[in-house]
Parts: sequence; C-alpha cells; structure tokens
Amino acid sequence: MTGFVDVKSMTQWIQREGVEKIISGMMDYLERDYERWQRFDKIPRVASHTPLGVIELMPTSDGEEYAFKYVNGHPSNPARGFQTVAAFGMLADVDNGYPTFLAEMTLLTALRTAATSGMVARHLARKDSTVMGMIGAGSQSEFQALGMRAALGIEDIRIYDIDPAAVDKFVRNVEPLGFRVHRAASVADAVAGADVITTCTADKAQNTILSTEHVAPGVHLNAVGGDCPGKTELEAAILDKADVFVEFPEQTRIEGEIQQMPADFPVIEMWEVIAGKREGRTSAEQITLFDSVGFAINDFAALRYLRDSVAGSDLETHLDLVADPDDPKDLFSLIPTFAPLL
Amino acid sequence: MTGFVDVKSMTQWIQREGVEKIISGMMDYLERDYERWQRFDKIPRVASHTPLGVIELMPTSDGEEYAFKYVNGHPSNPARGFQTVAAFGMLADVDNGYPTFLAEMTLLTALRTAATSGMVARHLARKDSTVMGMIGAGSQSEFQALGMRAALGIEDIRIYDIDPAAVDKFVRNVEPLGFRVHRAASVADAVAGADVITTCTADKAQNTILSTEHVAPGVHLNAVGGDCPGKTELEAAILDKADVFVEFPEQTRIEGEIQQMPADFPVIEMWEVIAGKREGRTSAEQITLFDSVGFAINDFAALRYLRDSVAGSDLETHLDLVADPDDPKDLFSLIPTFAPLL
Repeated sequence: MTGFVDVKSMTQWIQREGVEKIISGMMDYLERDYERWQRFDKIPRVASHTPLGVIELMPTSDGEEYAFKYVNGHPSNPARGFQTVAAFGMLADVDNGYPTFLAEMTLLTALRTAATSGMVARHLARKDSTVMGMIGAGSQSEFQALGMRAALGIEDIRIYDIDPAAVDKFVRNVEPLGFRVHRAASVADAVAGADVITTCTADKAQNTILSTEHVAPGVHLNAVGGDCPGKTELEAAILDKADVFVEFPEQTRIEGEIQQMPADFPVIEMWEVIAGKREGRTSAEQITLFDSVGFAINDFAALRYLRDSVAGSDLETHLDLVADPDDPKDLFSLIPTFAPLL
Repeated sequence: MTGFVDVKSMTQWIQREGVEKIISGMMDYLERDYERWQRFDKIPRVASHTPLGVIELMPTSDGEEYAFKYVNGHPSNPARGFQTVAAFGMLADVDNGYPTFLAEMTLLTALRTAATSGMVARHLARKDSTVMGMIGAGSQSEFQALGMRAALGIEDIRIYDIDPAAVDKFVRNVEPLGFRVHRAASVADAVAGADVITTCTADKAQNTILSTEHVAPGVHLNAVGGDCPGKTELEAAILDKADVFVEFPEQTRIEGEIQQMPADFPVIEMWEVIAGKREGRTSAEQITLFDSVGFAINDFAALRYLRDSVAGSDLETHLDLVADPDDPKDLFSLIPTFAPLL
C-alpha cells in the first residue's frame, strides 16, 4: 500500500507541528540533500506550456529513493477562483520502482519554497538582518515571512502589492503571529532600509518589479517569482551588480532571472556553498541574489521530511495503488471473471 | 476533488465490462487520438535509469487535457515477488492545471498495451490471420491474446517461454476463455505457421529472441518487449526485411528495436497510417513490424476511456488532493492554528 497525505491531513499536520518548526526541520533536510547534491539524478523540469499557464513534472533520485512533483502555474487562476499553483508529489523505492508515498503538495510547496529561501538566506544574508522588504502578497507571502523568521529572526516586514486586498490579507494573517508590518506605498517604500528583499509575484511576463536603484549595498535579494521562461521580475542591471546563486544552472538559465543574461553569465551553485566548496557572502557590502526557481531536490527533501514526520501517525492513510498478484507473472489472476470455474 | 480508481475498483471494472469489450473500446479511443496526433504536445518519456531498472514519466497533452503516467520497469522484480511493471497515472485540466482523475495503471497499462497492439494489427496484419505465435508468457501475455482476438478474431496460439511455469499459467488463464493453445518446444516451433508473431519478454539486454529465419513472408510482427535503451528482442536483419511502423520516432529510436539501426533508418509513423496519409500493409507477402515501445498518447487514451466509463459509478471514489481556500490568494487561511483568535 502507498502512504497518502491528503489536503485535510496536511493542514492538520501543519496545525500540530507549526509552520516555523516545519520550515526549520525542512531546512535541515534540504541542507543535507544539498551537501550530497552530486549523488542525485538531475534534469530540468519537464514543462508543458499552454496559453493560460504551464504544467510541470519535476523528478529526481538519489539512487535509493525517487521523487517527483506534479505542479501547475496559472497566473490567471485567482481571478477565476483557483489557486495559481496546485501540486502533488510522490516518493518511490528505486530498487523495485514501487510508489511508497503520495501527498498533496500545494501547501507543502509553499512550505518548501519558504524553507529553501530560508536555508539560502541563512548562508547569504547578513547575520544582523532585521528588516525584510517584500514585493507580492500572494499565497506564498506568509510562508516567506515565517521562513525568514525561522532562518534569521526577522520580524519587521515592509510589504507592497498592486492589490491592496492582498496586503490586507497578509497583514491579517501575520500580525497575530508577532510580525510588525509596514504597508508600503510603493516598491521604493517597501525596500527602504531592507536587509533582505523578497520578490514573489505571479505575472507571467518580463516585468521590472525591482530596478537597480532599489537594491542597496549589503542586501540579500531573494527572487522567488521569476520561475518560468518569459517570467522575470528584476531589471537585468541588478544581476550585474550582484553575486548570483542558483539551484540547478541547467534549469535556472531557462527559467530564472538569468534567462535575461548570456548563456555564460557567471553563477554560483548553492550546493557548492553548503558543501563548503565555494564562499557565500564575503563582505557586508556585497549584494547577494538567490535566483530561486524551485528544483526537484527541494521537493525530494520536503516529501521525505513530511513522510518521516507523519510515519505511523493517524495523518497518513493508505492508497491501494499497486496491483499485487500472488504470482508476480500472473497479473491476469487479479481479474476474477476470467479465473477458471473449478 | 480528484476522481480516483484504485486497484480494487480497477479489477471490478474489468470484471463488469470484460477485457475484450474494454480493449475494443480502448482501440476506438486510440484511433481517434492517433487521427489527431499532430494536436498533441509530444516528448520522449523521461527516464531515470538505475542498475535494477528504470522509472519513467510519460506526459502528453491535446491542449485541453493533460495526462501523465508514472511507470517502472524492473526485470528482476518477479524473482523478488514484485511486478516487473507497476504504474499509475493522472488526467488534468489544461485550463487551470488542476488534477481531475487519478488511477492505478498496472492493469490499465496491460490493457492499453494490448489495445495498442490490437489497433495496429487491425491495420497491418493480414485480414485472414488465424494463428499467433507468442514468445514470452509473462504478465502481458494473456492481455495480448485477448487484444488480438478483439482485433482479428485469433484463437489459435502457439506460445514459448524459457519458464515452463509461466506457460502453465498462460494456458490455465486463457484456455477457459476459448483459446486453443499449443505449448511450443522452441521459438521456431512457436512461430511455425503463425500469421502474427508477438514478442514480449522482459530481460533488459540486447537479446536475439527472434532471428530472421523465424519470420516468414506475410507475417505481422508485434514486437512489444524491446522498450528501453539496451533492451531489444530481434535480430537486426529482421528490421531490414520488414516495413517498420512506430508510435513516436523520437522515442522509438532511443528505446525500440530500431535502436540497433542507423539514425536515418526509415520508419512509418502509425498515426500517418490511421489518418490515411500513408499506406499500411500493401501486399500479402509484406512483412510488417510494429516496433512497440508504448507512448504517452496511448496512456492518454486509456485514462480517458477509463474515466468516461466509470464516471458517476460506484467505481470512482474521490481524493482530496487540491488545496482550495475560499480566497485563492489566501492559501495560509487553510492553516487553522494561525487564524487570529477573534
């Protein structure tokens, strides 16, 4: 039987454990997987683009477990009452190829994206960071706030979104959690004095959400929204001013902010920083930029963290997903009509 | 909610409908999708190879619906008590990216592989075919027999397998269904006088299950087993004697029997035959060869046939797989702990 966590169990798990505890635990799983990055089977995600959005499959394997995520990205969905991003994912045993665990991943993706941002910020942001400027108050925004608090202790947030109702929602959700929120009147107001800037908008277009004058020396820029061909958020000049860190260059060059740059634009792979092979932040004035697009190994870590956390609890149910005849060569025996009448 | 058919529901569906009725219905769905082949988004399947086998994702879309299948292939599985192939698959709505239907596909893959073989044989085998030679008596064998009966009315089968217990199982399963089975002593004995030859073995190696002297003029060769890089069943000389028909050349050249041949080896795409753009069989002496590897559009058709057949019945349950907050920008609202205490 295949373990299963549905939406209801996922919300109960988050309620019981708490978002920040989950993000902290997931950051540890992520770091361990980034340290052994070279063991993984890695390909850019497999995307099917349509006029309204994209549907993607994101597989990876460490040689013992295989994971993949199904995820869509449809910027026009909220206007029609749907989530921009919905996802589910699976773990399988590489030795026999059987699926072992299936889970909703809309919520889990929000957690793992925040955990990835947090893990990276732990290595790249200045240790004395106290203020985050945020552009975008959509579904990912509260998770990003909690991720940065888990990673850096940040509780002061300056947020801007073109949709004031989305900002209302953000304030309503995070103020009770102890955050101090400044409702910024503009992008410039949101980033004023920020130590960390997070951009997380959904529009599938080459936008300039952030310009070079918005990025002061010493800032860590957590660029989450540009994650698709033709979808960027930053003025290209920012990329020239910053040291750019990425997950998997083969995918980021297609999907990330660096799709604006030449194919040989220099980047540092985050796993190299975490494994101690390259330096992360080297000075208080350096601008560090995490060109985050979301990679399959992030989902691999998140799924394993969830699976390990719910194992043996009432949160995990089971699906009858794999036909299992007594004689493995006799699949036909599962069809009762055709058994000989004895 | 996402519709769901688990293993138990799948076996009940097959029991209620009957294998041959399902295969016949699926052949019609397959033909309609092959006729509109050019509308589909097509890529070779995405494979993760390991020493013990392969795990694959097979996505496709017609612009309205998206489908993918997860499937493994582990030839050493039966010796360890597992199925060689286990699978599940999904349909999604392209407009919003939401998964609509999930199903076990171990049994469904067996049905769709037989339906594909049958659909192709209907176009390529001689109309007066009455005898099938079969090499391989594994999990797929009974389904192939029923597929060829549905397509061509064949009831005389000559079967050979290196494992006599597998042949026993095959005879036990299909004789009660009205087939006349000859237990062949060798490959040569199995193919003697055959109008259709089906090869369906699991060993992941460059084998010569069938040599050129085994293939008489007028035969239709249904080569099912060679479906992976490094996994072939036919002597290369057979390919030179035959007209070779394939599903999706970009995938078949990697995985099929034609991986043994130069990159420009001439093939005919089955969709062209079904859409009336190319001829299938042109003479009673021609040797036709279907180099079957299994393509995503076959699974797309099978999943849609299943979904349409079980819709509204007790065979379809539902999974809570997509988080669905009232305000689509307020995913965070699904986590009850963090709602403000009013």
